[in-house]
This record gives sequence, structure tokens and C-alpha cells, in this order.
Amino acid sequence: MSELKPSSPIGVFDSGMGGLTVLSELVSALPGEDFVYLGDTARVPYGSRSPGTILRYSREVSEYLLRFDIKLLVIACNTVSAHAESILREELPCPVIGVIHPGARAVVAQSRTGRVGVIGTRSTIKSGAYEREIRRLNSDLSIFSKACPLLVPVIEEGWMDKKVTGQILQEYLSEMVREDVDSLVLGCTHYPLLKKAIKDQYPELKLIDSSVETARAVKQQLEERELLREASESGPTSGLKTDNGNRGSVRILLTDITDHIESLERLFFRHPFQSLEEIQIDDMTR
Amino acid sequence: MSELKPSSPIGVFDSGMGGLTVLSELVSALPGEDFVYLGDTARVPYGSRSPGTILRYSREVSEYLLRFDIKLLVIACNTVSAHAESILREELPCPVIGVIHPGARAVVAQSRTGRVGVIGTRSTIKSGAYEREIRRLNSDLSIFSKACPLLVPVIEEGWMDKKVTGQILQEYLSEMVREDVDSLVLGCTHYPLLKKAIKDQYPELKLIDSSVETARAVKQQLEERELLREASESGPTSGLKTDNGNRGSVRILLTDITDHIESLERLFFRHPFQSLEEIQIDDMTR
Repeated sequence: MSELKPSSPIGVFDSGMGGLTVLSELVSALPGEDFVYLGDTARVPYGSRSPGTILRYSREVSEYLLRFDIKLLVIACNTVSAHAESILREELPCPVIGVIHPGARAVVAQSRTGRVGVIGTRSTIKSGAYEREIRRLNSDLSIFSKACPLLVPVIEEGWMDKKVTGQILQEYLSEMVREDVDSLVLGCTHYPLLKKAIKDQYPELKLIDSSVETARAVKQQLEERELLREASESGPTSGLKTDNGNRGSVRILLTDITDHIESLERLFFRHPFQSLEEIQIDDMTR
Repeated sequence: MSELKPSSPIGVFDSGMGGLTVLSELVSALPGEDFVYLGDTARVPYGSRSPGTILRYSREVSEYLLRFDIKLLVIACNTVSAHAESILREELPCPVIGVIHPGARAVVAQSRTGRVGVIGTRSTIKSGAYEREIRRLNSDLSIFSKACPLLVPVIEEGWMDKKVTGQILQEYLSEMVREDVDSLVLGCTHYPLLKKAIKDQYPELKLIDSSVETARAVKQQLEERELLREASESGPTSGLKTDNGNRGSVRILLTDITDHIESLERLFFRHPFQSLEEIQIDDMTR
């Protein structure tokens, strides 16, 4: 195992494109870092797979990212964080940060009523990972969880501002709100795009964006381990690598690229990037 | 290449569980036949993959089904029918029947206004396969196509009777109905479960169920090739294989099994079956 170096890139892994919301926050919070994002778009969504299949895919993708000599792996995917994070942390030679612990920590800190909600894909909710993590931090909280499988396709349709989206949100959230939940964890990397639509329906609800919280946790971990790479102050603010290398680069690898995937990239990622490359899944399974 | 035998099973291939609506119609129309259904649930949905990836997966699954010495392959999946049917027909040693031609033939026969609609997943609509096939049969028709990516998750949520489903259907169909479309092809194997909800919104619309039309086409093909296996009249009507073998059997193979998958089986398949087995995807890629 080689030593971790500040100059190495950060690996970011998602089952698909949603993790780009996490990458957006990472690039904003850590402008001096290089990032390699791998979205397994040939096999997305992991959320409907069995735990064994999710673990197998997660190992394959993580091992592929190790080729880039990464100094830290961000699991920018709730499904993988729920099912494979602790195993990957044991197996990989670098620190591993998922999205669940940062989201759980934030909702525990912010709730006033002690009644909190969690929404996510069917598989994330069924895993009980957020509930376990929230209870571990504060066993007195009441937790209301709801799987919301329609929200990802609603976002990918670009229906964020449609009236019907408000009605779908009511289907999913009205019961929770009646239970006096005051804080809601957006437990899926797509959901930050629905913040406004949720606020329109339920203005009182505090929304916990796991992407923001995860970027914060990554920065803290890098500082503690003295692995942080600062951006030079003179660099541009775009996140683009310049000749003098004082800004980090962003490389996006996908296992399958379609026109629709490219439109999702524009939906989820708000920074420039150096390359968008397709890699073959056969490369990973060896 | 071995000779095709009436006693051999029929292979049925879908990217997931929706093809079970086609299998349901096949079992009803062909009670004497044995069926082997393969749903590639570890890699569903194919609809969001690139054409190259869809073709690769389709070849792997078809080759796996050939191990059962099938006499005919039904492609019970619009995405695969759109992208891989003609190539599989050339490559495989048995007849291949997809869902698109039967659906197109039926809508051409039934439309009175000459204005027809097609709904399906993003990939099926984008492929233009229904439009091409309908135009080939009758170049005078006006065709209105619409990708409806929310309908599959709506069905898998079991929201067939919810008010919000009517509103989602209006989002997708109102423009088409304003265009005086009189017949609508349900170009996704999930959609037969929405027949009632669509009828409630648009009672005048004739709905073309590709599953029913495909079962009809399969029966005709087997008769023409003298490959049909009749059920004995004395057998039970359940579709279950009995000791004297006068009724066909149904075997369901899936590349990934979860609780949710089992609930979909109950949603989509209305006959008894002999076995539900998980097979490993590694078996297919060799």
C-alpha cells in the first residue's frame, strides 16, 4: 500500500449521475483538489438490486478508482453508502466517506421538535441505514422514513416546477408533515433539485442536503490527515485547471454514455470539467 | 444447428419484470407450451442504456436461453425489440418475435381517423421503431409519439388507482388527444396495467395492448411452422404442469431477486409457475 499524498486526486463514486450534485459541492468546497468521478451508468440504478449485487458492483467500481492512486474515496450514492460503505472502508487502502453519516449528523444537530424525516429510494429506506445512524447519534429522536421511487424520474424528466410534482410530493410527504416532522433529510443525491418544490409545499420544513454536509465532512477529514490541497488565490474560480495548476481538475468517467446521460450531466453538475469519458464495464470485472 | 421440435420450450426475454404481462398472454393463448422466461433484473432498465450496451446485453441473454433448446424466442421487451430484434433474428437458430411489429399491425388495422399514438420509455420512443413499422404498413397514417418515463415507476408503486396518476397521464397524453388521435399503442410491457386509468381519463381512446397482439403472432407462427403443442382438453386450466404433462410449464429465471422483484411478479403475472430461480450474470458473460 502506497502512502497517501496531498497531490493525489479524490475519487467520487456513484451508481449513476445523481452523485454529480455531491461532486458540485465538493468542487465548491475544495477548489484546489483534483477529482475523478465514476458513474456506473451501464448498471444504474443500484437501488433496485439485491445487497449482494450492490456490494459486487461497488467493489468493482472502487477497485477501478484505485488505479488513479486516489487519496480518499467519496461514496456519492446513498444506496452504496447504505450497503457497502463499512465493507469498502475495511477493504480499501484510503479513507472512505459516504453520504449517510454527514446527513444524519446534520439532522440530529438541526431538529428542534425531535421528530425528523428521511426520504430516499426504496433500497436506501429499506436498508434502515439513516435510522440506525440517527439513532446512534441520538436515540431520543422520532424518525419517519418514506421511500419515494417517483422522485428520481420526476427530476430526470425536468418536472421540478410542474404542478403535478407538488401533488406527487404531497402523496409522499403529507403523512410525515402531519406527524410534526420539522427536519427532512434528502436521502438521495437527486433530491437537492427538488428543494424549491418541497419548500413551495412545506415552507416550514428544514431540508438537510447530504451533498453539502458530505463536502464539509470530506474537507474536515483531509485537514485532519494533512492531505488538503489548497487552491492558489490567484487562480480562476471556475474549477478549471489552468497552466500553473493552481486549481483542481474534474474528470468524469461513465460506464455508458447516452444523449439522456449528457442532459443529466447538465442538470446535476454546475462546474466546468476537463473530460467526460466512457469506460467499458468489462475493464472492471477483469 | 439442431432441428426445431414442437416439444421444446418457448424462450421469453425481458430486461426485467414487465415482460411477464406478455408471458401472461402467451400462457393464456398457448396453454400446451412450456415457457422459460429470463428477466435481466440485475441490469434493468435497458431503456436508459446506449444501443451498443443494449445489443451486448441482449446477445448475452439470448445465448443463455439457447441452452434450453428453445424452438422460438419472444422478445417481451420494447427496448430490445427496438434495438436488437433484427440482429438477433439473423444470429439465432430459431424464429424471433418481438412486440413492436404485432403492436404496429394492430394499430394500423384499428385506427379510423388515421391518427395514431404511441407511448413508451424514452429509449423505445427515441428509437423510432414503432413509427418506422407503422409507416411501413401504412404510410398515410399520422403518428404521435411520446416518451413517458414516469409511468413505469407509477405502476411499480402500485399507484394505478391514484388521482395523481390521472394527472400524470394528462401531462403525457393531453396534447396527443387534442390532435384527434383515436388509437394508442401501449409501447411498454408495463403499460397494460394502466389501461383502466387511461380509459378513465380518455374513454374514447382505443388502446392497443402489444402483449395480446404478440401472443397472437406467436401462435400463428407456431402453427405455420407446425411447432404448436396443443394442451390436452382434460388438463387443468391453471397452466400448471400435471403428472401426465398435458399442460405446459412456466419457469422464471431472474439475474437478481429482491423482495420488490417478487412483488412485481405478483403485479405482472397472473398464472401459477413451477419455479422462480436466480441465475448469475457471470454465467452469461463467460
